[in-house]
Parts: sequence; C-alpha cells; structure tokens
Amino acid sequence: MAEPSANPAPLQAETPAVAPAAEGAEDGSTSKKAAKKAAAKAAKEAAKARHAAERAAAAAASGSATQTEDLAKDNYGQETHETKFSADAIEINLKTLGDDHVGKTVELRAWIQNARMQGAKMAFVELREEGNWAIQGVVTASPEGAPVSRQMVKWVGSINPESFVVVEATVAKPLVPVKACRVTNYELHITKCFVHAAAPTMLGMTLAAANRPIANFSDEEVPVEQGVEKLSIVSAGETTATPAATMLTHLDNIVMHKRSAVQQAIADIRAEMKELYRSYLRSHGFKEFEPPCLIAAASEGGANVFRMPYFEKEAFLAQSPQFYKQIEIAGGRKRVFSIGPVFRAENSNTPRHMTEFTGLDMEMEIKKDYREVLDVLEGVLLHIFRNIKERCADEIALVRSVYPSDEFLLPEPGKEVRLTFAEGQKLLREEGPEEFRNVSDDEDMSTPQEKALGALIRKKYNTDFYVLDKFPESARPFYAKEDPTNRKVTNAYDLFMRGQEICSGGQRINDPVELEARIRTKGIDPASPGIKEYVDIFKQAGVPAHGGGGIGLDRVVAWYLNLPSVHLAAFYPRTPKRLLP
Amino acid sequence: MAEPSANPAPLQAETPAVAPAAEGAEDGSTSKKAAKKAAAKAAKEAAKARHAAERAAAAAASGSATQTEDLAKDNYGQETHETKFSADAIEINLKTLGDDHVGKTVELRAWIQNARMQGAKMAFVELREEGNWAIQGVVTASPEGAPVSRQMVKWVGSINPESFVVVEATVAKPLVPVKACRVTNYELHITKCFVHAAAPTMLGMTLAAANRPIANFSDEEVPVEQGVEKLSIVSAGETTATPAATMLTHLDNIVMHKRSAVQQAIADIRAEMKELYRSYLRSHGFKEFEPPCLIAAASEGGANVFRMPYFEKEAFLAQSPQFYKQIEIAGGRKRVFSIGPVFRAENSNTPRHMTEFTGLDMEMEIKKDYREVLDVLEGVLLHIFRNIKERCADEIALVRSVYPSDEFLLPEPGKEVRLTFAEGQKLLREEGPEEFRNVSDDEDMSTPQEKALGALIRKKYNTDFYVLDKFPESARPFYAKEDPTNRKVTNAYDLFMRGQEICSGGQRINDPVELEARIRTKGIDPASPGIKEYVDIFKQAGVPAHGGGGIGLDRVVAWYLNLPSVHLAAFYPRTPKRLLP
Repeated sequence: MAEPSANPAPLQAETPAVAPAAEGAEDGSTSKKAAKKAAAKAAKEAAKARHAAERAAAAAASGSATQTEDLAKDNYGQETHETKFSADAIEINLKTLGDDHVGKTVELRAWIQNARMQGAKMAFVELREEGNWAIQGVVTASPEGAPVSRQMVKWVGSINPESFVVVEATVAKPLVPVKACRVTNYELHITKCFVHAAAPTMLGMTLAAANRPIANFSDEEVPVEQGVEKLSIVSAGETTATPAATMLTHLDNIVMHKRSAVQQAIADIRAEMKELYRSYLRSHGFKEFEPPCLIAAASEGGANVFRMPYFEKEAFLAQSPQFYKQIEIAGGRKRVFSIGPVFRAENSNTPRHMTEFTGLDMEMEIKKDYREVLDVLEGVLLHIFRNIKERCADEIALVRSVYPSDEFLLPEPGKEVRLTFAEGQKLLREEGPEEFRNVSDDEDMSTPQEKALGALIRKKYNTDFYVLDKFPESARPFYAKEDPTNRKVTNAYDLFMRGQEICSGGQRINDPVELEARIRTKGIDPASPGIKEYVDIFKQAGVPAHGGGGIGLDRVVAWYLNLPSVHLAAFYPRTPKRLLP
Repeated sequence: MAEPSANPAPLQAETPAVAPAAEGAEDGSTSKKAAKKAAAKAAKEAAKARHAAERAAAAAASGSATQTEDLAKDNYGQETHETKFSADAIEINLKTLGDDHVGKTVELRAWIQNARMQGAKMAFVELREEGNWAIQGVVTASPEGAPVSRQMVKWVGSINPESFVVVEATVAKPLVPVKACRVTNYELHITKCFVHAAAPTMLGMTLAAANRPIANFSDEEVPVEQGVEKLSIVSAGETTATPAATMLTHLDNIVMHKRSAVQQAIADIRAEMKELYRSYLRSHGFKEFEPPCLIAAASEGGANVFRMPYFEKEAFLAQSPQFYKQIEIAGGRKRVFSIGPVFRAENSNTPRHMTEFTGLDMEMEIKKDYREVLDVLEGVLLHIFRNIKERCADEIALVRSVYPSDEFLLPEPGKEVRLTFAEGQKLLREEGPEEFRNVSDDEDMSTPQEKALGALIRKKYNTDFYVLDKFPESARPFYAKEDPTNRKVTNAYDLFMRGQEICSGGQRINDPVELEARIRTKGIDPASPGIKEYVDIFKQAGVPAHGGGGIGLDRVVAWYLNLPSVHLAAFYPRTPKRLLP
C-alpha cells in the first residue's frame, strides 16, 4: 500500500516495489483490441518479472554463501561528491547516440524506469532521459567478480523505479532490437552504477499509470489540502493492465504526472505553439510588450474579477490586457502583442474553465479595413497549425496514442472559411438540428449552437478552423466598433476550433465622442471606475483606428489535440477548488 | 491653460494651440552648452511660428474676401468611411522610403507632430510614424485653387499636434536636407489631407516635454486617482526650452509619455533583450514553461506577499516561480525557463522598487558542478549585452541623448570576472572606502557595500558585469545547497551590473532528508504551509541535482542604460501608491 509521506525508502530495497510497467501503456490506444493486447502483454511481463525475482532471490541466497569480498564495491552505491568516473568516459544523451559510440565508454545520467533481475548474474534496467527517450542497460556479473560482482547485479536489479542514477557503460549493439525502449539499436553494458537520488519504495503513481488517459476529471473538485489521502495505487505484480488514475491523483503526484511521456509531449507542443505565435507576429512587425496584472479598477462591470487589499487601497487582477494593448496603440505603436496570464474569478468547475490562463494577445493599427486584423489572427493561427504538425509530429502522435482524436482539419491555402454571423445562423437554421431552426441573427450563439455549427462547417467545408465575422451589436461590449454601413452588426469576430471559440476580437471605437455615446447606449455610466480611465485615453491625443484579438493558448492546445480537459494543456491548472501544487 | 478632460477640440481650430516643439529637445543633451543652444533654437522657432501665425491670419482675412468657392473641398477635412484616395497611391512607411518613390503618388498615415503656416499659400507639417521617424510635408496652394486651395493650406497648417492624419502626396527631394526630421532626403508635397483622429487643442504634455529627461520621480508617490489636476503645462509660444515634466505628469499623460522617442527606444531595447534571453536559452536546450501567479501558500515566511480571497479560501500572488521551476526539473525536464510577472507587496517607494515586475527565470539539471548553471546565466547575460549593442545601437544612442550614461563595460571573452564572496569582501577591506575596512566573510553585503565593490571592480577589471559566488550560508535561504567541501558557504551566487544585483541563484538541495534538516537548522517548521508542499516534491521520486537563477528584466534594462529609475524601464510601473494607468 502507499506510503506517500514517508521518508525516501532505503536504497537497497530488496525487491522492486512496483512491477515492470505494462508496456502497452505507452501505445495507449483505448480501442478494445489494443486494451486486450496490452493486458495480455502486461500479464506476460508480470509473470516474467515474478520468475526473475524468484530466480534473483535464489541466486542471491546462493551467492552470499560463496562470495565474501565484493571486488566491485567501488562501482556502485549512493553517489557522493567524491564518486569518480573514468576520465575518458564520454557524456552521452540518448537522442544523439550513434554508431560512433559503439565500443566506447560512456556516462549517462538518467532515471531508472524499470529494473529486473535475470537470474543471479544479470539484471536489466531501462534508463530514461527527458520525454520517452529510454535505453536498455544490462549489468552482468564478471566471472572474476570485478568490475561487476553478483552483489552489484542484485543491487542494480533492485533500485526503486524513478530513482535518478549515474552509470558508466560500454555502448553495444543488441542481438535483436530492444522493443521496450525508444532506443532500439543500442544497449548499455553497465560497469558502474550510482544512485544520485532515490525514489521511494512505493510511488504515489507509477509512470505507467501516469501515461494512461485520465479516468475522471470530476474529482479535481474535491478540496484536498495535502492531497495524500486519496492516491490511486497500482500494487506490485498486478496482472491486468495498469488502471488509469484520476485527475486528482495526477495533481497530487505532480512529479510523476509531469514525467509521463504524454504530459511532456503536450508541454512541448504548447511551448512550440507559443514560439510560433511569437515568431510570426515578430516577423510581421509586431512588438512585444508587457501589460500589468495588477490593475486599479475592474473593467467590464467587475463581475468575475479577483480583488485584493493593496496597501491602503484595493487592487484587481486583469481579466484581459485589452486596455493596455490599446494604450500601446494610442502611445504610437503600430502593432503590439503580449503573452501572459489573465485571470477570471468565475466559479465554474468544468473541464473548459480555469481561473488563470495564458492569453496570446495582439493589437494593431488599421489602415483601410478591420479585416486586416482578421488576416493576421487567421494567419498566425494557420501558421501555428501548419507548422506544429511538422515540428511536433512525434509529440502529436504520442498524445493521440493516449487521447485518440481525429486529425485537425485545415482549409486549403486560399480557401479559408469566413462566414458572417448571419450566414452561420442561416446554415444552422437550414441544415442544423431541429432545435436550432429558429435561431436569430440578433442574438449571440449558445455553446451547443456553436458546436452544431462547427459540425456543419466541418462537413461542408472540410475544416475545423474558421471565422465568424460581423457579430450582432447586442452580442458585443461597448468598445466594439459598429459596421458603418450596417449598425446592427459590429466589426467583430470570433475564431473557432472544432466548434469552440478560441479567439475573440474586433475593431475598437477610437473616437472618444462615439465611445461615450455607445457606453451610454449600453446603459453604462462613462464616469464609472475603469470606464472613465478607458475613455480618457482617447482624449489625450488622436488615436488611429485599431483592432485586435485575444487567443486562449490553453484552449488552442487542448482543442487542437482534442484533449478531454483544458486542464491537461496547462502546466499548473488553477480551478476554483484547487491551487496546489 | 490645460483642458485635459474636455471633449476633443473642434477640428478647424484657428491657430495651432501649442508652439512648434523645440527641436533641441530630441538631442536632449543636458550639458549647459547644449541647453543654451536648444534654448536659442527654441526662441528662434517660436518667433518664426509667431510670424507665421500672423501672416496666416492676415492671409486668411484677405483670402476669404477674394475666394468664394473652395475647389479643394474634397481634398481635406475629417476622414469618414467614404473618404477616397487615388487608386494608384502607394502606401509607404518612412523607414523604407527610397529614390524609387520620388515623383510617385503615395499615401501616408501618421501623426502631425508639428504644423505651421508659411505665408498664406504654404504650410509645413512634420508627419511622424512609430518611434522618431518623421518626414516634412509641404502643402502649397495651387494658383488655380485645386488640388490645394488657400483654405486647405490654412486648415492643414492649423491641425492640432498629435492628431492622426492620412495624406496623399508626391514624394520629392528637398533643395536642402530637412534637418528637423529623421527623413532628411525626401519630403512630401501634399495634395490631400484628412484628419482621422483629432488631438485636443491643448495636450496634457507636449511631445517635446515627453522627450525630456524626467525632472522628478518622488511625486509618483502622491496618490492621485484621476490624475488630471496636476498636469505640467507648456504654454504656447514659450520662448525658453521646453521644461521637463515630472514622473507624475508622465504617468497621467501615458499616451504622450509613450509617444516619446525615448520611451519607444527603451521599449524596443527591453523587447529585444527579452528576445535575446529567450533565443539563447532555447538554443541551449531550455524549454519554456509557465508557472502560475495564483498560489495556495506564501513561501518564504509570508512577508511581502499579496493575499486575496479565493472562493472559500485564500490565494497568494507568487513572489518567484522557483517552486515551479523545481517541479519541472523533478518532473523530468533537463532545462526550463520562464518569462513572467512576479509580485512583491513591499511598501518601498524608491526608484529601485516595483510591486510587479518581470522575472526571467531558468532552472537546469546539474551534471557535475553547480558552475554549469553559472555558465548559462553569465552566458545569457553576456549574449544579451553583446548583441543589444548592435541590434539597438540607434535606440541606445537615443536613450543616452536624453539620459546620459557611461558605456556599459563588458569583460573580454574568456576574461569574465567571478569572485567569491570572500574575495569580494577582501577587496572591499583592502581597497574600499574606510567604512568597509572591517566587513566580514560571514555576513551579507549591504547595498552601499555592493556599490563600492562595483566601483572597485570596474577600476580593477574594467567591467560593469561580474559574478559574486559562494555566498555565506547565513546569507542564503534554506534551499541553498552548501558547498560539500566547506559548509560555511553555499553554491549560490549573485550577478551584478554597475554594482547592483540583477540576478540571484544557486544550487538547490535535492535530497529531502538534507532539505528537512536544513529547514530545521534555519528555525523553520518543515510542516508549515508552503514548506511542506515544497519538501514533498523531493519525496515523490528521485530528483537530480539542479540549480537556477532569476533575472529581473526591469533592472537589467534600467541599469544597462543607467536610467534614473527602474520605473522608466517598465511598460506600466506598479508602485505601492500607484496602479494607474
């Protein structure tokens, strides 16, 4: 059973606490066939491990009788700052391992993913670097007792999984490719092995469990301060496939959650998407700036905003950098962007909501037409989608192996889909489900309407990415610029992925007289806190026409990969019930 | 006098409200000679403008008598969505204007920086794009009254400075280079001019004032909610050089503050420094991640931390992403970095402090020696300093013209300066000022000691950038790893610019047993909130040796340029007394 809060287990734990991870877990397909296969494989592995452990125990018993002095005693144990490795050992990393290394003495720092005895004279370990890069290591007792003794083999074979070790080894080509590891063409013949940092005897969540799709997200809501009472346990020697853990277990075992290949792949995709956003905008003349998080007034009516004591006053957390983006434009910038946290104090406990998330924002001067902004927003998202597919092909495949999803369909270049809001509603009325036969052009869409429209557009235009433009005046805030040729609609738009909004934007009113009039029309007092400061910006000096948009990075990542929750796309999801870790 | 809250002035204001900006302001040298020269120039300009205005008034009076129909009436006025420009007009931007454009009809969207009449038939305007890119525009009445009439000339010559206009013009080579504008080799012969967004008759702060060094930072502390009562006024026709404004005036006139060339240059330098940080770390195998701002427990004792109600609980704002950087390493990442806001609820009203600033953080696995981390931190800062000099040579020169500073001295490659803390103290004792003759190796340095040491190092090693390593155990927090060969000191360091700390870092303890022991030694309960969650991370699985550091971006920008306040380096400085704008 779990001992989650115990001190780290003593290093020389006699047997591996956790059975070798079911290898099927990383393939992770949830189809029945795959699950069956994985279960069979896991059972076979578990049986093998049992036999190995029995053999190891027997061998150890006999070994201790015949061998008194350990000639290899300086080649294994706990690493200290005095531990020495061969001066000519080459430091390697698994991604760049090649034929040049074969026969060479190398040094590798890695996690023990799995360790098992094979008789009394041999142990196998899987050594893992970042991501799912792992290599097989073999440690075989030397007939003369050095450099590897039977004691050393036994010790290596029983290192707790997820301990961090340093090994010295010779690179060799295995007789047959190693199927269990990502490095299949090489293996390491270990001559030294030191534990640098030990894992506990019993992990709160095994790597195999961490790599499975998350079973349940609703338990995130349980307010657990320490998070140690509800661990999902995978007991040693289990003969069925590793069961999936809940989101709560993942968050309570954040270290193992993050060591899973699937979470590292998601993190890599997220970082690259962010970089693609940044590099595209920079190459299109946008300058990065940093809006503040701490603000003096709650804009947009003050709903859903975090407030806090601030010396003798009160401060709020920004829900959007829009005010500050507009100040940048008023302040003489042509095009700006920002990447940073935004906050919503919304008590929504759903897989779509978080209280803190990352906004990718941009704002730009409009020369002739507000669609110039739309061109950039559509352009940067297409740039992200087209490039991520190549840059992160392996990572996307890995995520799909755990969370299966349909390919994210993109429009052909030049065939991007932009419908007006009214056209979208017409499509829903004419071709959508029965309940949407009467939707109006003057009322905002509901989430079910959006999803239904997404499905219609996918069928009709073969794309999961599209724009709805010209939202009705009634569905947009006071700062949205009306279409001068049709004041019932605005020069404002949303961008969608798989029927879900991921970006909202539009042209802003840049004339303070027009702005104040619109504020009054919306029933707001132009002198109210937050509003007054906003309007004043446009009175300070002449501000050109401008527009922008804000993209939710967490949602882009989550919906692109069709993850079951946006929380999986975040590094540290913040929800009303949870701030830990 | 100021009319800061008035509605935008009517477009056809009869005379320019503000005198042409003293041209000397942009050279901005504060030397006596330069100031005198600027004053003389300004006086001359003001006289010229007065004469021009008189001539214009006279011309207008006579013009209205002789000319009834305005044949140019469609070529100027307020822009509407129906305003038309020639179909063959080429959109230009001033940076890329070249000989190919000469004789062509072009269209430019820009701010009127300055407008003045030259007799009744001619007006000069300065048209400015982003930064300090400006070009001279000339509008001359056509003998036949079209395309330019006398009325049009008068109208253009009286546009309020900082209005945004759209002009159609022919590019020409001036007879003599235009000294007042950055574009000296071309001018625009204007045939159409429309005001897109008007500035008020009286600006809260003129561009010339905004471009002067800030006179006083202490008034930032005055708590002004609306910020409109205390404007610094530059009256029209002033015959002395534009007076400098206070920081309060700048913040209250954020639009004009940001339009100043010096603030745009600082913003450009900041953005490029950030990009250099990011690209260097990415190219060295670091992965970007996003730590949360909202956290559940106040680490480091809870002092100086913002706290707020969070649904039924309490939340805090992160003072540093260190905990989360370490989770990333524990979670299987080799090298990570983050760029984001950090918060300090410190009631310090000095030019060195802010309550929100941007942290450039990094954390990495250590293979052999903690100095691997120092190599990266030193490397990335040198990369920034060496490259910014070339990338932003113009911007740096511009900032220096307003805020003069000595060149930032860098060590020659291979001659980087790393002293131990003890060596630093020895230098202070032996060569420093009298009062530092008895400084101890076991006590942390004071700010005056740091500055004195910075001066000694500059003299001795010819560098403004250096490292102090091996800080005493007593001067570092519980998580700092002791030097295993000398437990009186830690594997922790600070990096300095001009005698001021800009980065703090070190190796962290990665063994939970050692960590708990050190926490107790420091008199802290390992079970206290924030501490327990921290220690638990290292119990979840084996965590490799690691270290990192945090760089304050605002300070790097400010000290590199030797700005009088770090607030000038921030986009929106947050101080205990000020959250606006």
